[in-house]
Amino acid sequence: MDHDLDLHADGPELTAALVDIASVSGDEGPLADAVERALRRLPHLEMTRHGNTLVARTALGRAERVALAGHLDTVPHAGNFPSQWDAERKRLTGVGTSDMKAGVAVQLRLAATLAEPNRDVTYVFYECEEVDTTRNGLFLLSRAAPELLRADFAVLLEPSGGVVEGGCQGTLRAAVTARGARAHTARSWMGRNAIHEAGAILDVLRAWVPRQPVVDGLEFHEGLNAVAVSGGVAGNVVPDECVVTVNFRYAPDRSPEEAEAYIRELFDLWEVTFLDNAGGASPGLTSGPAADFVRAVGGTPRAKLGWTDVARFAELGIPAVNYGPGIPEIAHTPGEYVDAAPITSAEHSLHTWLTT
Amino acid sequence: MDHDLDLHADGPELTAALVDIASVSGDEGPLADAVERALRRLPHLEMTRHGNTLVARTALGRAERVALAGHLDTVPHAGNFPSQWDAERKRLTGVGTSDMKAGVAVQLRLAATLAEPNRDVTYVFYECEEVDTTRNGLFLLSRAAPELLRADFAVLLEPSGGVVEGGCQGTLRAAVTARGARAHTARSWMGRNAIHEAGAILDVLRAWVPRQPVVDGLEFHEGLNAVAVSGGVAGNVVPDECVVTVNFRYAPDRSPEEAEAYIRELFDLWEVTFLDNAGGASPGLTSGPAADFVRAVGGTPRAKLGWTDVARFAELGIPAVNYGPGIPEIAHTPGEYVDAAPITSAEHSLHTWLTT
Repeated sequence: MDHDLDLHADGPELTAALVDIASVSGDEGPLADAVERALRRLPHLEMTRHGNTLVARTALGRAERVALAGHLDTVPHAGNFPSQWDAERKRLTGVGTSDMKAGVAVQLRLAATLAEPNRDVTYVFYECEEVDTTRNGLFLLSRAAPELLRADFAVLLEPSGGVVEGGCQGTLRAAVTARGARAHTARSWMGRNAIHEAGAILDVLRAWVPRQPVVDGLEFHEGLNAVAVSGGVAGNVVPDECVVTVNFRYAPDRSPEEAEAYIRELFDLWEVTFLDNAGGASPGLTSGPAADFVRAVGGTPRAKLGWTDVARFAELGIPAVNYGPGIPEIAHTPGEYVDAAPITSAEHSLHTWLTT
Repeated sequence: MDHDLDLHADGPELTAALVDIASVSGDEGPLADAVERALRRLPHLEMTRHGNTLVARTALGRAERVALAGHLDTVPHAGNFPSQWDAERKRLTGVGTSDMKAGVAVQLRLAATLAEPNRDVTYVFYECEEVDTTRNGLFLLSRAAPELLRADFAVLLEPSGGVVEGGCQGTLRAAVTARGARAHTARSWMGRNAIHEAGAILDVLRAWVPRQPVVDGLEFHEGLNAVAVSGGVAGNVVPDECVVTVNFRYAPDRSPEEAEAYIRELFDLWEVTFLDNAGGASPGLTSGPAADFVRAVGGTPRAKLGWTDVARFAELGIPAVNYGPGIPEIAHTPGEYVDAAPITSAEHSLHTWLTT
């Protein structure tokens, strides 16, 4: 079935229409088709499609170019599809309402209503944000055609509660391994229990005090957690190995290399193997186009503690922020919803920023 | 191929012949057949077969009956089959030499040479001791035909280094569960990390001091070990559950119920689930037939720290000890061996006990 999107409907209405075109990660085709058809009707935009990722650009020769980006996919349905309005049409419940079809609706409304924005605008609608990096449409596009993403500043319309969220924290995972010596448990003193030894690794985690550094005026909050532990040979054997997997969420004033050095030193009594590591991004809200943006949309910016695609823009040398009408705390929950008012208000703020 | 066993060969020679009939747990058929054929040639014994478990009994109407028991199976081969003598024929290397075909050879030699022992003797050769209880031949026989095992005293010819090992320790396993609350690791302070919490369980284990109680004159040595640990939901989630599986080896002055109560109290901050529990057996070497036995074979008895089938005899109300020529420390290792001298010496001691 071909879906038709009416970009002249208001933001909340358009959000409902977007939610009602299912687009779980990997199955964004029908939604990408509908968005493409709607955008191709707008003569002021140049369209490119890459898989189920769409890029629509104005080409007005403005001195500055900004990117407005959002993902088309959602997490799997949980009995919350299609969407449902409350009696007063103030709250829309359903999968992807907050994360992030409300944001996509705002992008589409701006695309439709801003034929001549004061800055050139690149609208990016991408696939597979909710799954692993190797399938992420923004990542794939940044490798295949980075020139399409070129911009002086980017806004990701991820749910941020209508507040500017600046930067993002880095995240690394490491396996910390305690070693011991096997023995029969009936004569355990002939061995050395690696699980008991791992207690000292957990001691480090339990004693750890998080830094809350202020970077570019925003307060971050680091975190260090065991996310997995495993050890054991058999029910009658003193185990000789126990692996604690830790996840370190680090503020953007540490580079990925510094974060690894820190973890290596913290666990210097044990073997440390790094499993993955994605650097954070500084907020950069104190100057340039990001500062202009914050002034334009108002409110008090806060630090983004999770890792987001903001870091992908940072990698390309593009300062970026999260700013969207969805509510981050309820993303991925069965009761996910979004309120109508913040959708209209985010559209209004961005429209003002891009016209005055 | 039918194997023929010559019970007139000396103990070490007979050991080599037994080792060279492969009998990994579950495949004892050919060895059980060979042992049965050899025993059926002895007119003073009444034979019964139950699966691959054999019982051969004298029926002389003696005032006392003793059981001599040993298992026919071995752990899987590890490049150590068939057996090999050293140059001087003093040491025999191979799978099952110590655990416990040297003991089985001693049983068979006694069966062949003692037509009129001073006590009635029940020889038990059983299957599947090296695997789980439900397949253990002695266990199955004790359920199917306990009258065949009836005796005043039992000797298990398990490897004990030629020393009487008395009693055995109990063993229980319990799952100790720490609970927490899930959260995204980017905002870990909104949850409670169950793996970190499990650090306190490991603290208990690390601080634990083993009792070494003397029971019936023998010193036992308890042990409490984590034998497994597991926890973790995903690489970016603060986990809400972590399970530490502990194995408690307890001296026979605690009943299984007392051992459980002790563990429940030790870990009273957490959820404790008992997975299995097999009680120990007191040595009982201070009086009765066991005391006579110790006097007869000499040496200084020591406590058996592992759990053995001695506890199965104890369950049937039969005092039992371990006494065999094998070396317990090298059982189940690829380099497993047995020396010729202790085989001859064990046969001699038991022969004397059963004739004078």
